[in-house]
Amino acid sequence: MSDPQPPLTYAAAGVDYSAIDPAKVLAQRAAAGTAAQLERWGHRELAASRGESAFVWDEGPRYRAMVMEGLGTKSLVADAVRPLSGRSHYDALAQDTVAMIVNDIIVVGAAPQVVTAYWAIGDSTWFADRERAADLVTGWAGACEAAGATWGGGETPALSGIIQPGTIDLAGACVGVIEPKERLVLGDRLAVGDAIVLVESSGIHANGLSLARRVAAGLPAGYATDIGDGTALGEALLRPTHLYPRLVAALFDAGLDLRYLVNITGHGWRKLMRAPRDLSYRLHTLPPVPPVLSFLARAGGLSPQEAYGNLNMGAGFAVFLPPEQAARAVAVAAALGLAAWDAGVVEAGPPGVAIEPLGLHYAGDSLGVRG
Amino acid sequence: MSDPQPPLTYAAAGVDYSAIDPAKVLAQRAAAGTAAQLERWGHRELAASRGESAFVWDEGPRYRAMVMEGLGTKSLVADAVRPLSGRSHYDALAQDTVAMIVNDIIVVGAAPQVVTAYWAIGDSTWFADRERAADLVTGWAGACEAAGATWGGGETPALSGIIQPGTIDLAGACVGVIEPKERLVLGDRLAVGDAIVLVESSGIHANGLSLARRVAAGLPAGYATDIGDGTALGEALLRPTHLYPRLVAALFDAGLDLRYLVNITGHGWRKLMRAPRDLSYRLHTLPPVPPVLSFLARAGGLSPQEAYGNLNMGAGFAVFLPPEQAARAVAVAAALGLAAWDAGVVEAGPPGVAIEPLGLHYAGDSLGVRG
Repeated sequence: MSDPQPPLTYAAAGVDYSAIDPAKVLAQRAAAGTAAQLERWGHRELAASRGESAFVWDEGPRYRAMVMEGLGTKSLVADAVRPLSGRSHYDALAQDTVAMIVNDIIVVGAAPQVVTAYWAIGDSTWFADRERAADLVTGWAGACEAAGATWGGGETPALSGIIQPGTIDLAGACVGVIEPKERLVLGDRLAVGDAIVLVESSGIHANGLSLARRVAAGLPAGYATDIGDGTALGEALLRPTHLYPRLVAALFDAGLDLRYLVNITGHGWRKLMRAPRDLSYRLHTLPPVPPVLSFLARAGGLSPQEAYGNLNMGAGFAVFLPPEQAARAVAVAAALGLAAWDAGVVEAGPPGVAIEPLGLHYAGDSLGVRG
Repeated sequence: MSDPQPPLTYAAAGVDYSAIDPAKVLAQRAAAGTAAQLERWGHRELAASRGESAFVWDEGPRYRAMVMEGLGTKSLVADAVRPLSGRSHYDALAQDTVAMIVNDIIVVGAAPQVVTAYWAIGDSTWFADRERAADLVTGWAGACEAAGATWGGGETPALSGIIQPGTIDLAGACVGVIEPKERLVLGDRLAVGDAIVLVESSGIHANGLSLARRVAAGLPAGYATDIGDGTALGEALLRPTHLYPRLVAALFDAGLDLRYLVNITGHGWRKLMRAPRDLSYRLHTLPPVPPVLSFLARAGGLSPQEAYGNLNMGAGFAVFLPPEQAARAVAVAAALGLAAWDAGVVEAGPPGVAIEPLGLHYAGDSLGVRG
């Protein structure tokens, strides 16, 4: 293990949320202004879904949801690791991308139905690498099936001058169904006393990769560095993201009262206070930290406050439900091979997330993902 | 008018469809293999929509369609023209992008319902330019409303190392409704003797911009060059793409029997033979060529065969319907302010497009957009 590097803040790693969010707010307001167009079909938007992870509208017999998501920069890690591993890793990246999409649509209670792909490349030679292209296609189809979705085509533009030569921007969209309508989850039924069940991540998932690249660049052995359990950093980073649609479907099928769901991504555990409610969230139990994340936090010199505020730290998904149902939720997850923990409780009080065992606290204004 | 440059082929301008299409075919086949997932809801895919511009599935009381599309590289033209014009032009680019999306979903007979945005940037400072960000947001919302769609949110990732600094990749997805189900258009009812009605484009739309950038780079005055009608090349290129959803809705509402629809984009008039049918297409009438396209063809040294085979040359959309309904279709378009022409006829014979007034012919194997 090398010496820790100077601490890397997220702004230093090239992600400055403060410069993006005002435009997001502007866009959310303009988007809300177009809602009346749905009236032509007798449908109506659920205004409360604006700012949630997926847009939801009411079609009468069912709700419908739609989401757009992208992988981020994880493909750059795969490109750098390929000479070491001898594998393209694009099957894993395809699953990561589909996971980013479907794990976001399920949080409103939707089952993903149709997924479309957007694969933008810098020059048309990208797809001439048949092994890599085949891995991407196979991984995408497999992840759609594992999520219960049909792959409905997509677009593969060559964008010379916009996308860097040799690289690819992986993204996609999904339309989902909330049926029966009682499955709608927008956080309005979240209550003081509800339990917070955290579900294991598979590793870094697809957030924190800019940071990981910076850390790898500063290590003498780079992506070949042993993270402490015999695994090379590159291989560990490229473990594909867990797909949670089957878990959410199983929780519903078990009759559990899911009051809020969070896909833990770019804002780490701060995202646990995503519900539009004045509530406080206290975590009393921590899942084990995947070796790749503890390595990254150490090597990157991240404080626990930075690490838990930006990385999933072992918790990829969170389920909020009545406390007497927490054990059942943990058992349902276990039956699907996913470790889960009855890890926290919803409390009255000013919005914030407290991670008791580490003495950490995030105030309500530290999230900033809403308008 | 400067001397013509050496002819530019599309491969020389950085777009090599032959390197992309095999992967598209692979993806289409893998995607088709995921169709059974729809059975959970009692829905089924329309296999005939695989390879069409939009994916279509049967929900019982209605068909549903979904599409993913992107702008391509037109934003690079706006970035280069802004110092000359003093405007960001991102309101126009937003309309271009929405047009690429919704003009593709209407060809299967769908009305666009919900549009999501994907705006990927190279660094988070892109949105710090408030004027440009506001233009993009305003233009996107306006285009969604003009297309009859609700804007359902989206994603704005900063992709350092994938997207070039200072540039943006504009794309989006749309879900649409085909209702009543008789409006489904997949080309199976296309018949010998049907008329081909061509509808005006507004200019270059969003295809051929790589070529336009190469041409501009070779002109002494660049984007400030007068294209012959007093308009600067840059301004002319940035005229926003026509939105055709209202036209298609009006044609249906007029009771016309729409047998096939084509959004004329990257393959120019070759796309008129897009229907999966062994039919031949003869054009006897040409719409006037927009000055920006005749200038581009001349300055780029494109042969008529290349120009009509890659650019819209004044025809942005094509409607195939019984010949006795052609005049009515032209009148419906005129009422919406769109010039249209009863321009051709569907004939028996080997697949191909013949442009009679120019003595041009494209053989069936020159399209290559299907698996």
